Amino acid sequence: MNAQEADDIIATAAELADAARVATLLHFRSPGLTADNKEADRFDPVTVADRLAEERMRAILASRRPQDGILGEEYGAQAGTSGLTWVLDPIDGTRGYLAGTPTWGVLISVRDATGPVYGLIDQPYIGERFAGGFGRAAISGPHGSGALRCRPPRPLAEAILLSTFPEVGTAAEGAAFRRVAGAARLVRYGMDCYGYALVAAGQVDLVIEAGLQAYDIQAPIAVITAAGGIVTDWQGNPCPEGGQVIAAANAQVHAQALALLNA
Amino acid sequence: MNAQEADDIIATAAELADAARVATLLHFRSPGLTADNKEADRFDPVTVADRLAEERMRAILASRRPQDGILGEEYGAQAGTSGLTWVLDPIDGTRGYLAGTPTWGVLISVRDATGPVYGLIDQPYIGERFAGGFGRAAISGPHGSGALRCRPPRPLAEAILLSTFPEVGTAAEGAAFRRVAGAARLVRYGMDCYGYALVAAGQVDLVIEAGLQAYDIQAPIAVITAAGGIVTDWQGNPCPEGGQVIAAANAQVHAQALALLNA
Repeated sequence: MNAQEADDIIATAAELADAARVATLLHFRSPGLTADNKEADRFDPVTVADRLAEERMRAILASRRPQDGILGEEYGAQAGTSGLTWVLDPIDGTRGYLAGTPTWGVLISVRDATGPVYGLIDQPYIGERFAGGFGRAAISGPHGSGALRCRPPRPLAEAILLSTFPEVGTAAEGAAFRRVAGAARLVRYGMDCYGYALVAAGQVDLVIEAGLQAYDIQAPIAVITAAGGIVTDWQGNPCPEGGQVIAAANAQVHAQALALLNA
Repeated sequence: MNAQEADDIIATAAELADAARVATLLHFRSPGLTADNKEADRFDPVTVADRLAEERMRAILASRRPQDGILGEEYGAQAGTSGLTWVLDPIDGTRGYLAGTPTWGVLISVRDATGPVYGLIDQPYIGERFAGGFGRAAISGPHGSGALRCRPPRPLAEAILLSTFPEVGTAAEGAAFRRVAGAARLVRYGMDCYGYALVAAGQVDLVIEAGLQAYDIQAPIAVITAAGGIVTDWQGNPCPEGGQVIAAANAQVHAQALALLNA
């Protein structure tokens, strides 16, 4: 990809994120906000804000990059001709959004045949954006801008581990997670996609989750990889389609956690 | 208390919170941040930022309100002569602070013989402040200012419940919590003191925790009570000294949750 194309992707992603900020903040913490349930057997909420944000991002892509494909959480897949696909999660962490927490985010990424090449994790309420790809990884937020860099290796016994839900996934997945949790210094829950941003920002060592979708993980893969970290499945393979995911600040803590996940 | 005295308390609390913002942000997400462990048998971290923020708040009180007592998490109790005591937690949620999350906060409150009369929950990274007492409850933050008002009653099956750790406390306390959790629509973890702010802001219905200290809960009591909510222990009694705490948006959900905690 040439530099002009990369610059256009970066600019388009920023325009999408700006539009999604407006759309999501329009309804965030509004008194009448309610959720529809997407699943019959469990609470999988979607709000008017999820749909509005994805609609606005798709409208921008239709105008700026009609040749690219789109995969969005709310409105599905649309084929393109360029070999590039925009992967959109208008609100990752709708439960957090419904609870008013500042942990949900807008996930935007672009993939080619090799996987994600650029991604954004945007937290509209804080006004904080984590970007990675094309050789750069950067944060901009309420306290300025700077480079993103994952933290250096430390023993797992000194590491901080995050996951959104303490159950993690199935009973077997939960048991595997707890083997790592028992060896870490500190385990915290509830961060939604913000946890992946904290890996890229050098604040935590590990995020381990299960049951993810492609649109949940492609932007984090781009941002964390650009910041020097590693995102794989629990077998150590690339995981652009989601499933069981481990995001690690460095190869050493990745290897230690993988060994316990598979012990 | 006359209006002039109340105004001076409000202004002093704001000055303390402003000073604590500077002190805590000086070290938040800094590369060299490390934690001392206060307890031999578990990880109870304290950072240089905890100590610096409390020192700066105590210096302001020594100058502005030398007649008042102080109870601070890091530097203990200091008697006063006015009948008022400032209760300070420079960083509530030091684990969240160490992990870079935007969920920790500065807790500042003033109590008289009857309990907390005014309190602030301040989140410095977001730049968001929740205040309550003397007949007002207000939020100011990145998206403006406004009144705080707890949400109206809804069935527990529609309610959102928060707690910082999934274990909650002892095994018996965890079991009691899970009776309420099993009846709620949505349960989330990891919010530190920000969870209490979300009760006051009308975003969630319940926070249930155990093992709290006086400095963890006095500011939330002031803010949530001023916003129309209720904070008690698990028997329904006032809890200014901490312990087992339930913060509820209204009397109805408080009663429903209390019945299950004691079932």
